[in-house]
Amino acid sequence: MRDVYVIGAGTTRFGELWERSFRDIGIEAGIKAINDSGITGNDIDALYIGNMSAGAFINQEHVGALIADYVGLAGSLHIPATRVEAAGASGALAFKEAYLSISSGMYDIVVVGGAEKMTDIGDEMANYITSMAIDQEWETVFGATYASLQAMMARAHMERYGTTREQLGMVSVINHRHGALNPDAQFQREIKLETVLKSGYVAEPLRVFDMAPLSDGAAALVLASGDVARKYTDRPVKVKAIGQASDTISLHDRREICTMDSTVYAAKRAYDMAGMGPEDIDVAEVYDSSTIAEIMAIEDLGFFPKGEGGKAVEDEKIALGGEIPINTSGGLKARGHPVGATGVAQIVEIVKQLRGDADRRQVKDAKIGLAHAVGGSGATAVVSILEAEI
Amino acid sequence: MRDVYVIGAGTTRFGELWERSFRDIGIEAGIKAINDSGITGNDIDALYIGNMSAGAFINQEHVGALIADYVGLAGSLHIPATRVEAAGASGALAFKEAYLSISSGMYDIVVVGGAEKMTDIGDEMANYITSMAIDQEWETVFGATYASLQAMMARAHMERYGTTREQLGMVSVINHRHGALNPDAQFQREIKLETVLKSGYVAEPLRVFDMAPLSDGAAALVLASGDVARKYTDRPVKVKAIGQASDTISLHDRREICTMDSTVYAAKRAYDMAGMGPEDIDVAEVYDSSTIAEIMAIEDLGFFPKGEGGKAVEDEKIALGGEIPINTSGGLKARGHPVGATGVAQIVEIVKQLRGDADRRQVKDAKIGLAHAVGGSGATAVVSILEAEI
Repeated sequence: MRDVYVIGAGTTRFGELWERSFRDIGIEAGIKAINDSGITGNDIDALYIGNMSAGAFINQEHVGALIADYVGLAGSLHIPATRVEAAGASGALAFKEAYLSISSGMYDIVVVGGAEKMTDIGDEMANYITSMAIDQEWETVFGATYASLQAMMARAHMERYGTTREQLGMVSVINHRHGALNPDAQFQREIKLETVLKSGYVAEPLRVFDMAPLSDGAAALVLASGDVARKYTDRPVKVKAIGQASDTISLHDRREICTMDSTVYAAKRAYDMAGMGPEDIDVAEVYDSSTIAEIMAIEDLGFFPKGEGGKAVEDEKIALGGEIPINTSGGLKARGHPVGATGVAQIVEIVKQLRGDADRRQVKDAKIGLAHAVGGSGATAVVSILEAEI
Repeated sequence: MRDVYVIGAGTTRFGELWERSFRDIGIEAGIKAINDSGITGNDIDALYIGNMSAGAFINQEHVGALIADYVGLAGSLHIPATRVEAAGASGALAFKEAYLSISSGMYDIVVVGGAEKMTDIGDEMANYITSMAIDQEWETVFGATYASLQAMMARAHMERYGTTREQLGMVSVINHRHGALNPDAQFQREIKLETVLKSGYVAEPLRVFDMAPLSDGAAALVLASGDVARKYTDRPVKVKAIGQASDTISLHDRREICTMDSTVYAAKRAYDMAGMGPEDIDVAEVYDSSTIAEIMAIEDLGFFPKGEGGKAVEDEKIALGGEIPINTSGGLKARGHPVGATGVAQIVEIVKQLRGDADRRQVKDAKIGLAHAVGGSGATAVVSILEAEI
């Protein structure tokens, strides 16, 4: 397999972008990443787009071609464009497919985008659409929602490991603290633990401030083969490994629900491919669609032993300046969670950290970073490991 | 790039399968392809699923994980599963991504599925969803439908090249003749030219019998690296080339509308990669979402000069026994058109032809075959070339 590098990265600001369209934010992120890389449209061999549900959110499928067109790559250049979908892991898998297209030798320079426009319809409909990531026939139809499944995992984790309501809340507090340092984040204000603990229930024991928001946003990356990456930058970031794994789509069919086996297997595959372990990671973006999801993630990725994630959060080991800074971007909770964009935005943050471009939220001497994305309640997980070669 | 082979193929029957669910048909096709190849679940490294719009048709996204689960690959084996979407080219691009994952060296054996369940909702809603493949903001909102754009292309082609209403009708007659020889086809009855010419208008000049139907169905393939393919079969079919190209998503932005530039570029890329030309192709499946689409395809793929496609159809050069048999499966028109399955089903037919397994519709001495899929009104095109190594 040929070496692959990230040579450009960019995002829109995330948030409720009511004045902007899906294509508009897709263009902005793409242009930012392209400008950051120094390439021009003529250099691009292909485009991959991560998107969960433009069909349901904005009545538009075929969004790979849509974005290629409006970025100016389709009408005269006829650049191939492909959409990839696996719910919240859509962006991460667009990144993987772009990686494969270069490592195979078919392409040299590929743009990866992720985008979702979720706030143009009512919240109730948007929540219904996000529940299309779980099992429609055996979960949604019987009244389960995305949040209610997260709540079941939280209850089980609290019961089995003594994880506390306050520890869950601290995930949100730390992510908001980080988000306040990120000018592209949806929420840039610190919050207090009481704010989380007094917010309304979404699905007991999870409250509004335990859950990632509905968001609009797009993110993009430019990938290049080893041969050409250094023509464009002296700060390439190497894609060391990508691991992907599945689990049953229904939560009730899982081996157990306090561990996401998909994350465990995806991480194992990524660590093996990179020849590394969790102890080698300097900074990570993990999938905090809920506070319990982040606690399970930092355990399942091997950063902390099973059952000790809550305590690690309480001790602020995951905060900037801690043992392993997690979600320096603000995570899904504070940066925002436009579902299809999330997996790409996570890698944008890791690239910024590894280049030393993360400004007020920079992790000192970060050389190796990890990004972790999840689809649905854990039916898909993707773990990517990147390394600075600067 | 490593060599990649098709070692297994299977489809469900296509049609209005009201008694069967999306996951049910996905499982059937997958199991058929897996059994055909001789592999077992433990041999599979990854799964790719082509699907256009399960979110809108059946309120279920994340269908890669869904199928992986129900085929038995997710719960204990944790096999990676990824959905790929580009409207009518979804299945063809799932095939491409599977090809890249093997040619890159990441995987050795990969299953590709395509599936769509379109008939469980009303026809009007289904037609609205298929129009999500064209530009929602600049076409659908102003009243354009998928069929009306095809009609504009037909009118222009008739005006510029003298293509006749009867020639359009003969595309349908020939595809139905072929479909009558395919036990998996949705329509297995021959029709007369008068049947087409007397059927009701969908969008003038195109009539009901000019348009591919709404269908349910699934198709699947097993791909393997060169090293392992011959362990499982002495009849591997080599993937010689895959070419992909984009064009503007809106028809009105195109350079011109009697040619699909995306097909022209995708074909050029595939022919260059294979070191072949249209004269080398023995049998082809092309994208006849409408009769005019097939006439444009056989021109744009280089089988006939521009403007002479209609005459070639009239002279039955594309029928079984003709110069270059096209859509021996019955094509989208008669085999049926479950959108996300179509690109995979086309390759299933080519594999059957190249192995000599096509029974009553076998093309004699077929050694090299081509499959051509289109997304939307031509914003995406994919051309794959396969060769028998038997």
